[in-house]
Order: sequence, then C-alpha cells, then structure tokens
Amino acid sequence: MRVELGDNVTIIDDKGKKFVINITKDVKKVKGLGIVNSEDFIGKRYGEVLEIGNKRCVILPVSFKDYIDCLRRKAQIILPKDSAQIIMNCSIKPGDKIVEIGSGSGALTIALAKSVLPNGKVISYEKRKDFIEIAQYNIKKAGLEKYVEFKLRDAKNGIDEKNMDTIIMDVPDPWELVDTAWNSLKIGGYFCSYSPLISQAEKTVRKLREHPFVEVYVLETLQREMIVLEKGVRPSFNMLGHTGYLTFARKTLQTF
Amino acid sequence: MRVELGDNVTIIDDKGKKFVINITKDVKKVKGLGIVNSEDFIGKRYGEVLEIGNKRCVILPVSFKDYIDCLRRKAQIILPKDSAQIIMNCSIKPGDKIVEIGSGSGALTIALAKSVLPNGKVISYEKRKDFIEIAQYNIKKAGLEKYVEFKLRDAKNGIDEKNMDTIIMDVPDPWELVDTAWNSLKIGGYFCSYSPLISQAEKTVRKLREHPFVEVYVLETLQREMIVLEKGVRPSFNMLGHTGYLTFARKTLQTF
Amino acid sequence: MRVELGDNVTIIDDKGKKFVINITKDVKKVKGLGIVNSEDFIGKRYGEVLEIGNKRCVILPVSFKDYIDCLRRKAQIILPKDSAQIIMNCSIKPGDKIVEIGSGSGALTIALAKSVLPNGKVISYEKRKDFIEIAQYNIKKAGLEKYVEFKLRDAKNGIDEKNMDTIIMDVPDPWELVDTAWNSLKIGGYFCSYSPLISQAEKTVRKLREHPFVEVYVLETLQREMIVLEKGVRPSFNMLGHTGYLTFARKTLQTF
Amino acid sequence: MRVELGDNVTIIDDKGKKFVINITKDVKKVKGLGIVNSEDFIGKRYGEVLEIGNKRCVILPVSFKDYIDCLRRKAQIILPKDSAQIIMNCSIKPGDKIVEIGSGSGALTIALAKSVLPNGKVISYEKRKDFIEIAQYNIKKAGLEKYVEFKLRDAKNGIDEKNMDTIIMDVPDPWELVDTAWNSLKIGGYFCSYSPLISQAEKTVRKLREHPFVEVYVLETLQREMIVLEKGVRPSFNMLGHTGYLTFARKTLQTF
Repeated sequence: MRVELGDNVTIIDDKGKKFVINITKDVKKVKGLGIVNSEDFIGKRYGEVLEIGNKRCVILPVSFKDYIDCLRRKAQIILPKDSAQIIMNCSIKPGDKIVEIGSGSGALTIALAKSVLPNGKVISYEKRKDFIEIAQYNIKKAGLEKYVEFKLRDAKNGIDEKNMDTIIMDVPDPWELVDTAWNSLKIGGYFCSYSPLISQAEKTVRKLREHPFVEVYVLETLQREMIVLEKGVRPSFNMLGHTGYLTFARKTLQTF
Repeated sequence: MRVELGDNVTIIDDKGKKFVINITKDVKKVKGLGIVNSEDFIGKRYGEVLEIGNKRCVILPVSFKDYIDCLRRKAQIILPKDSAQIIMNCSIKPGDKIVEIGSGSGALTIALAKSVLPNGKVISYEKRKDFIEIAQYNIKKAGLEKYVEFKLRDAKNGIDEKNMDTIIMDVPDPWELVDTAWNSLKIGGYFCSYSPLISQAEKTVRKLREHPFVEVYVLETLQREMIVLEKGVRPSFNMLGHTGYLTFARKTLQTF
Repeated sequence: MRVELGDNVTIIDDKGKKFVINITKDVKKVKGLGIVNSEDFIGKRYGEVLEIGNKRCVILPVSFKDYIDCLRRKAQIILPKDSAQIIMNCSIKPGDKIVEIGSGSGALTIALAKSVLPNGKVISYEKRKDFIEIAQYNIKKAGLEKYVEFKLRDAKNGIDEKNMDTIIMDVPDPWELVDTAWNSLKIGGYFCSYSPLISQAEKTVRKLREHPFVEVYVLETLQREMIVLEKGVRPSFNMLGHTGYLTFARKTLQTF
Repeated sequence: MRVELGDNVTIIDDKGKKFVINITKDVKKVKGLGIVNSEDFIGKRYGEVLEIGNKRCVILPVSFKDYIDCLRRKAQIILPKDSAQIIMNCSIKPGDKIVEIGSGSGALTIALAKSVLPNGKVISYEKRKDFIEIAQYNIKKAGLEKYVEFKLRDAKNGIDEKNMDTIIMDVPDPWELVDTAWNSLKIGGYFCSYSPLISQAEKTVRKLREHPFVEVYVLETLQREMIVLEKGVRPSFNMLGHTGYLTFARKTLQTF
C-alpha cells in the first residue's frame, strides 16, 4: 500500500511524536516537523522510514485514534481513557443514535462517531460558536462528517431527539439536564455525564435517583504507563492525577 | 415497546443485581432469582417494575454490556475496564478484521464483535475445548455468532489470517507470538497483549522492539467507584487492585 | 535473647498471621491459635520456630507495629498507612505534646505515643465510654500508658490544653473544632483531621481558610502490595479503595 | 515567641512556597525570595506576616518536615510519603539504632534521626563523597548531627554494627546486602529496601526468602492531593506516578 495524493497520513518520529497530515501538492509548515513537502511522500510505501527535516519518521495509514491524539484543541478534551469507558459503559455499538451535549473540541465526538458508523448518528449540541467550529474542523478532518450533526444551541432550551440510545454530557451543571435526558432516551438507554468536580457527580446522582433510572454509578479511571528500561521496569513518573468523574445511569419507566 | 416471546431481556433487581434471560414458555430456574416463569413477562412494557419471586425487578431490553456482565464464565475474564482500553487504543471500528488469541470465556470477544459489526469479523483462536465451548455459548447468546469465527487450535502452530487490523492476545507467553502477529497484521495495524504479570509485559515489549513496531507502550488501568451516600461522597472501599497490563504496538515495515 | 515470664511476645504463623500474647502461667485460648500454654515458651530463643497447636510459628519480641496490627478493635481504626502520613506531615517527634480528639480503639494513639516518648504526651479525648475503655486496654497492653492521658469528654465543650504541637481529630464534624484547635495549638503547630467523606474535608478546609492557618492541604494515600510469585510479579488483587482524607494545616497569627 | 539571632526559621510566602533560613546579621540571597536582610526579623513574633522583597510571607518556627521540604538536594530523594511508610512499617521509635545504606542527600536520614532521638542513633553509609557531604550539610542544618554517624564507605565491604533495630537501604542491588543485613539485625529487627524498579524488589524478596526472615512484603504508596476550589472539590491533576517500591522483612533465627 502506497501513499497517494489526498491521503491523510500519520507520521511518527523517532521520539514517538505523532502528526496527521494531508498529502497535497503544497509545501506546509507542521509544528514540530518544520517545513514539509508532502508531495515527496507520494508513492512511498506505508510503514517505511523517511527522513523529514532532520528527523527519521515512519509513515502510516491514519487511524481514528491518530485523529484524536492529534486533534486541534481548545480547552480541555475528554481523553481516550475516559471516552473508552463511556463507550463501554454505555454499551455503544454501530447503529446507535447518540446525543452529545457539549461538543468541546470534538475529541469524544470522534470516538463516538467511529463507534456508531455506518448506520448510527451522533447529534452534538454546543452553545459556543468557537467550540463548534473547532469540533466541526476535527470531525471533518477525520472524515466523519456524515455521522455527526452539530447543533449550535444551548441544550437547556430543550433538545429535539427522542428514543436515543445514549445521551452524554460534558457541561457544568449536568443535573439540570437529567429531565431532558430522560425524555430523550429510549427505555434501557444510557445516560452519561463527565464532570471534573465530585460535587457535580454528586448532584447529578441525587437528581438521577429522583427519576426512573437504574444502574446509577460514578466511576473514576486512573491510568499509568509502565516503562521498560534496559535495566528493568517501573511505572512512569508522569501520571495524570485526575481528569473527570463519569456518572452513568440507565432509563426505566418506573422506580422500585 | 413490549416484551415478546423469544426476546432476551435484562432483569435488574432492587439491589442492582442483573440477569439476562430468554423469554420462553418454559419455567426456568435462575440463580439469584429463583423459579422464573418468563412467559408471564410477555406483553409487559420494557422499563416496568415487576414482582419476581419476592423481589422487585425492572425489565429492560438487553445491551451488549449486559451480556458481558452476565457472562457464563470459566477462569478469569478480561474486564470491561480493560476491553474498553483495548478497543480505544487499537482504534477498533466497524468493519475491522481482528484476530483474538485466547478466547477464554468470550468476554472480550463480545466487546470486539459488537465493535466491528456489521461488516467486520473476529477470528478467535483457543486451544482448550472447554473454553471455546463456553465462549461459543456466550457469543451465541449475545446474537453475535455471525461476527465471530472460532478456531480450536494453538496459535503457536501458526495462524491463517493476513492483513488484520488488530491482533489481541491473552496468553501466558505473548512474546512467542510477536512474529506471528507481525506477519498477520496490516501496516499500521495494532498489536495488543493482556498480561497479569509485569515480566510478561516486559518480555513482550523487548521482543516487539526487535521488530518493526512503533507506539510500543504498556498501560495499567485502575478504576474506582465513588459512592454517593445520604451524608456525602467517598470512594468505594472495594477496589480491584489489579487485573492486567496491556501492551500495545503498531506494525511498520522498518524500524528507526 | 530468651522468652521470659511476663513478656509480651509476637507469634507469626506460617501463613503470616500474627498474634501478640502475654507469657503467663495460665493456659489461654487465642482465636486463630487454639489453646496456648504460653508457659511452654519460657526459655525459648526469640526467633525460633515452635509448634503451636498444629501450626509452625515463629516467636519474636513484640514491636509497636505488632500492637497496632493485633489491636482489639471496635469500629473502624485509622490504618498504619494513614497514621504514618499523619506523623510525617505533622512533623511529630519525641517530646511533642499532642491532642487527639476521638480515641476510637486507640490505633492512632499507639502510633502517636510511641513517636513522642520518652518526654512527650498524648492527650486523647473520647466521648464514648465503650471506645475509651477499649483504647485504654490497647494502650496499656502496649505499655504506653505513661505517655497517654485519656479524657472521657466531648471536645466540643472545650479542651484544656494550650500550646500543643499537634492536634489531630477523627470526628464527624471537624470544621466545628477548628476554633478549638487554633486556640490550643502553638504557633507553627499542626492541625490534622481524618475524614472518610470528601465533604468533611471540604468543609474543614473552608473553615481553616477563615482562620490564620497556612499549609492547608488534603491528601489521600493509596497503598498496594506487590506479590512476588514463582513465575513473576504482579500487584495484589486486594486493595483497599479508600480509608480517609487527611486534612492538614499549620497555625499562624495572621493571614495573608 | 519571638525571632532571635541564630534561629533557623521557616518562611512561607503567599503562594505556599517555603524557605528555611538562619537569622544572621548578614544580608543573604535566597533563591525565590531575593535579597533577605534576616536581621530585620529579630524581635518579630512567630506567626506574623511580613513583607519580604515584594512578597507577603509568614514566619514560623522551623519543623523537621520543613528541613526535609527545603533540603539541599543532589539526585532523587526518598520523599516524605515513603519515609513515613518506612518509619511505620519498621516500627521505628525513640531509642532505636538504625543503619541506613545510601545516605543520598539525607532526606530519609533526617526523618529517621528525628524519630530515634534522644537516645537512638542512625549510622549512615554512603560510598560517594559528594553525597555524604550534602547529607552532612542537611543533617547539620537540621541540628541532628548528634544522632547521625556518617561512614564514607561501600557497605558491600561489610558493616560494623550488630544488633540493629532496623536496616534500610537505597542501593541499586539490595539483594547483595541481604546477608549483611541479617547479620547486623537483632532478632525481630526490620529490613527495608527502597527500589525504583520492580525487578529490584523481586530479586530482594527472593533473596530474603532464602534467609530466616518473616513478614516479607512489598508496598507501593500513591498519594494524591484533593484541591478545594471555590466551586467544589477535585483531585489534583498533578500526581507523581511513581517513586519506589518498599520491600520489608523481619529477622528470625529459623524459617518455617
């Protein structure tokens, strides 16, 4: 398989730094790589090592994980460790219809969209124009625009969708959207909220308990890399101490 | 939406315990629920609360997560927190062709199969007949048999597949299958190995470094539940201290 | 060194279970060991392996850690991992005068007393008679009664001590004792509160910030054992997910 | 209590940054504070807020924790969270005789010395002259020189002490000192080794198991700060992913 004009490709340098670029006839400036004449890559075999600038780099077909890792971002994104848990705990699958409230930079949106294609859909609400634009840029770059519909609107004014498989929110006051979520979910559908503060998760849980929801729980996920050195193995000194709490629930008709 | 004959349904009792049962005309004995005459549920609305035995239960449409949570199991399974990370870090998507080595009870197999449908496929190698039978039982119950092909065979004797998107292994000596994995992966395809012992991850990393692989890393994921009590919030006292280390890599043609 | 009549000794069986017993002329019944005729041990060398009941056991001079590990307990104790952090973060040293509010079973009291001897003192307030009795029993057994003064009294009604080096509390509403603590501490003295709920730590911090305190912070400590097996190493599956949050502060005269 | 000439004092600025300085008649340059004329502080009350440079600072009596926090350091030190666990798990108390192998910058040495005074002693071996000098500087600054004896020598060539309460080592190959440790410990005395790599702990455990030791175990301690913000509480994003594994054991005469 060889690189062709128009391809999006992943470039990984010998330090492990990763870049996603589009193969064009133009010279481009890539932060961290310098001036890149991507036309030179046309005809190279994927998996080959190339000299780019004065770095040795390998060129690979782009994956959705690459798009997430190399996202253009504004504000904090939901990291892969957490979007992985969202997709698993909401049992998201191809064909699902999902509402996301708070597109942010679209990092979770990409993870959701690639999980529901080819027949599913993500409807993503965002009230800030600057966020929705960056999310749209990232979704388009990842080739996922068919699977995502953005709505520049405050979900607190109501959302249009009914019978959703999952509703996920990354907003400061998720408890205020519990009613909205219940109304838009199908029976057995999943609610998820991502919150940095423990009080946000707490209030959301208390609100969920007033509604017909089951399987209400809050998870925190910590991830640590193990470093394999010449002389042995140790955990990485670098560890992210916190991202967010994930609150999950599942819609029923009646409570116990 | 109402319960029909032949449905698989999820039943959650007021303690949060979950059961997946098939709606039949027979009376069945369900461990934890007692004698269940599932025919009685026909016509009930999903989401309703029912009296089963002397417990109050809610009846829901079954999700893939439910199948995993209620798996018939033999030996230790790969838990959702880890299969979530595998799916994310291997960038698994609908349509992918995946080889799994070590079916176990099929817990990961379900998570993979639901992620690659409708056009993808999981080929699952298992050398133990008792494991493959339980995995097949679980996959069939989850309605995923179209997406999984089981091979009762030791993958050390070679595997047939080429150009795979991802190869995942849960075996005692993953380093011995690094060659096999490289040969079966497409360029840019993902390798993953699940290992309880740190030395297993270490040996696998050292072997991977001898081959054209990039993005070689080892992750450990810890998860903790937060408990919302009447009087406040605290982390759960119950926490699983360890499951396994996940070793990831990605195939290239050349090394730096 | 040989075992003598009247010694407290530590007995560790071949499963690692530990017992502290007093060498007497009486036959005693020890839970987990059965009938023990401790007189038989007199004259044995410390460090020797003995047959007790049908178990092989080693007999050792008792340490303060042994007294804590083998405490007679009522309700939850402050575990060594946390009392270690308290002693370090409060910079506790021989000679210190310390007030403890909430003796509980005396586990922390032992750790404090052994840290301040031979010239220091722990004054331990407890409003429940059943707790103070068990704490006194444990302190006496550890031979630390000279260093601890118990007061059967609710500290909310005021405490007598002034110019304390450290005040530590394990009470449900520590924020209500912040004034009391400030008044009893010397300048530069340390405040510590142990709380299972995050809201307790939060309220305490907010109260501390209204007073002349510096170095106000909250710590959570997690501990995991690594298991060395024949075939390799892995973290223990058993891990305590939570004990308590430790809130620290240090008295000043003025705030910024 | 007022500041006097010759005092060591702790200064904490309004960002929480801490400095330990000696009150002299000289003007000194303190990194982070600028030019400090410490003579000006004489007669100030401890606990008062002062203007130093253009920062508002509080002045406090120095504690041992302050000496550790403000250590002059070379290479990685053993952090308070770990030295706390060492002191607790080795049941260290006033009067103990302790051998430390690997003084490093003396951070653990301070913690040990303040725990064994007034009648105990720490004998600290260090083979590197540059390390022993910095450790001596730090111990002297903390006023603990009476309680510490440094030996500029490789402990692999043998150590002089017998009947020690505890032996602690921070060396690359602790398994080679297990014999030495056993010989120098009293019966029931504690062994501790601090190791960044898991293989170091593993080898040490295997070696300990060949000798008469009981209570052999390896601990890892993780610590996370909780941040109390105006709007709520969350764990700190900053978390140290790893420091070292602590291997503990206790000397007996015989094995099971």
